Amino acid sequence: MKILLPDTMPLDPALPEGWEAVTVDARAEIPAAHHDADVLVVWGASRRHLASAAENLDRLRLVQSLSAGVDGILAGGFRSDITIAAGAGLHSLTVSEHALALLLSLLRRLPEAREAQARHEWSSELGGLQPLHPEGRITSLIGATVLIWGFGQIGRTLAPTLTALGAEVRGVARSAGTRDGYEVIAESDVLDALGEVDVLIDILPATEATAGAVGREALAALPDHAVLINVGRGATVDQVALREALEAGTLGSAGIDVTDPEPLPEADPLWDAPRLLITPHGAGGRPVGADERIRQNVRALVDGTEILHAAAR
Amino acid sequence: MKILLPDTMPLDPALPEGWEAVTVDARAEIPAAHHDADVLVVWGASRRHLASAAENLDRLRLVQSLSAGVDGILAGGFRSDITIAAGAGLHSLTVSEHALALLLSLLRRLPEAREAQARHEWSSELGGLQPLHPEGRITSLIGATVLIWGFGQIGRTLAPTLTALGAEVRGVARSAGTRDGYEVIAESDVLDALGEVDVLIDILPATEATAGAVGREALAALPDHAVLINVGRGATVDQVALREALEAGTLGSAGIDVTDPEPLPEADPLWDAPRLLITPHGAGGRPVGADERIRQNVRALVDGTEILHAAAR
Repeated sequence: MKILLPDTMPLDPALPEGWEAVTVDARAEIPAAHHDADVLVVWGASRRHLASAAENLDRLRLVQSLSAGVDGILAGGFRSDITIAAGAGLHSLTVSEHALALLLSLLRRLPEAREAQARHEWSSELGGLQPLHPEGRITSLIGATVLIWGFGQIGRTLAPTLTALGAEVRGVARSAGTRDGYEVIAESDVLDALGEVDVLIDILPATEATAGAVGREALAALPDHAVLINVGRGATVDQVALREALEAGTLGSAGIDVTDPEPLPEADPLWDAPRLLITPHGAGGRPVGADERIRQNVRALVDGTEILHAAAR
Repeated sequence: MKILLPDTMPLDPALPEGWEAVTVDARAEIPAAHHDADVLVVWGASRRHLASAAENLDRLRLVQSLSAGVDGILAGGFRSDITIAAGAGLHSLTVSEHALALLLSLLRRLPEAREAQARHEWSSELGGLQPLHPEGRITSLIGATVLIWGFGQIGRTLAPTLTALGAEVRGVARSAGTRDGYEVIAESDVLDALGEVDVLIDILPATEATAGAVGREALAALPDHAVLINVGRGATVDQVALREALEAGTLGSAGIDVTDPEPLPEADPLWDAPRLLITPHGAGGRPVGADERIRQNVRALVDGTEILHAAAR
């Protein structure tokens, strides 16, 4: 049995006896000598790499992605009997950390502090005695209402940290209920809820249903002091509406790690929107626990048990 | 019975029957009509205010500060039979939050991202596929070794959040041991420990013993990639040594909310040190839970029970 590992990150999964691991160039076609592979691990693969796998790996039974999303692989022409497993959960800690970095940086006004520092200015406006809840502005998570839109693995990792910092956290998912002790409201009720939200964290995947979800209506429903964070996908936010809300002062601030398209074109006016922090899709990009996930799913393949996070085909 | 509340923040403590609360100008002398007060609450008070209280409040039994430190009040000439209570714990959540904001901002390189944004540049160096632990740099708390120097109320509030984000946390205090499940090393052993530290968080008070604690020796002992956060007091860091370490590249980055003196003079070269983020003492500045603390300590005064966080006199 053979498993192909990408050369895009160090990997060393424990494998059942008799399995051979081969590291291949994730940007190139799969060499003929490895067309007999049973499992393909995908991380940072080129289209060419995926196409050559779909076309030539006749014995392939499992494509294990290390990304949370597998849209590209699902569209890659793999035979329908091949299981495609997503790397769900491998990015929960890293993306949570980045979302928190963007959020706290905006709440604590670190970009403004950096600008004052460049002017050698001890800005008394940013320090000293201050109200916990100043009028028309949010400067702390203490008592803040946070709504996480897209309450999956990442959201459920992030929520307890926000709670520990003093926030009141709710989630949004397709159906209402309670998850990990957090109230989750249904997507259909989200517009009604936004009026009470201080911080909206978008962790939505890019699907037809989520395109432009944070659009003109949602942005208008948020209070003028609200902070928007997007560590989901760029297409879930209407970027023109976002820029206009920041320019009009009807949104407090925003921190986005994703745009549509990526890279954001140099001429896009979004770059210069006020109170906006853009990072170049750096929230994740480093799967944590990949070896263990590969080990588990190869084991499940061998044993015929359930493969974790297998995508519906 | 009478309690004087400062006008520097909104306060409305529940008081025992028969107690009268009067709000006074914390920057001015205490009016003669209120020289009969039993309790004085101090927040953002001027020296003149404190001096007039020490001189005129003949019936005073308790000075309740809302600050964590009470050095100024202890030096204010109050009779030795007056209890002086610190506002310990009232700043734990806010200062923890700020320390985390500075730390995550540096780890996730948000200042660099902001600069790239100003140039309309999608910096591939800051995003995309990346190693979890790049050579010679720390970009995540996952697996990071964090040492909290000054492991009091704030440190113990911050530690579990760092743990939840994937860090391994230890504290430093006067004596070694375990607190809240965290290993605490003795101050005398700190230099030996620094070589393995990725993040050093200074939450030390300003005392004779802590002056320049993070000095040339400590900075040299830290790995070149280490991140220093100071939300304690400016005098605990040797600022010349800090600047030189940043300039020489023997310290990864630093985020400081406190300097010595404050404000930092406009001409101080520290402003321009590379990879340094300065905020103007804005970590705390907003006591959380002040009403409840006042209620508890007035109750304790009436009942003759122990007053919380009474300072040694």
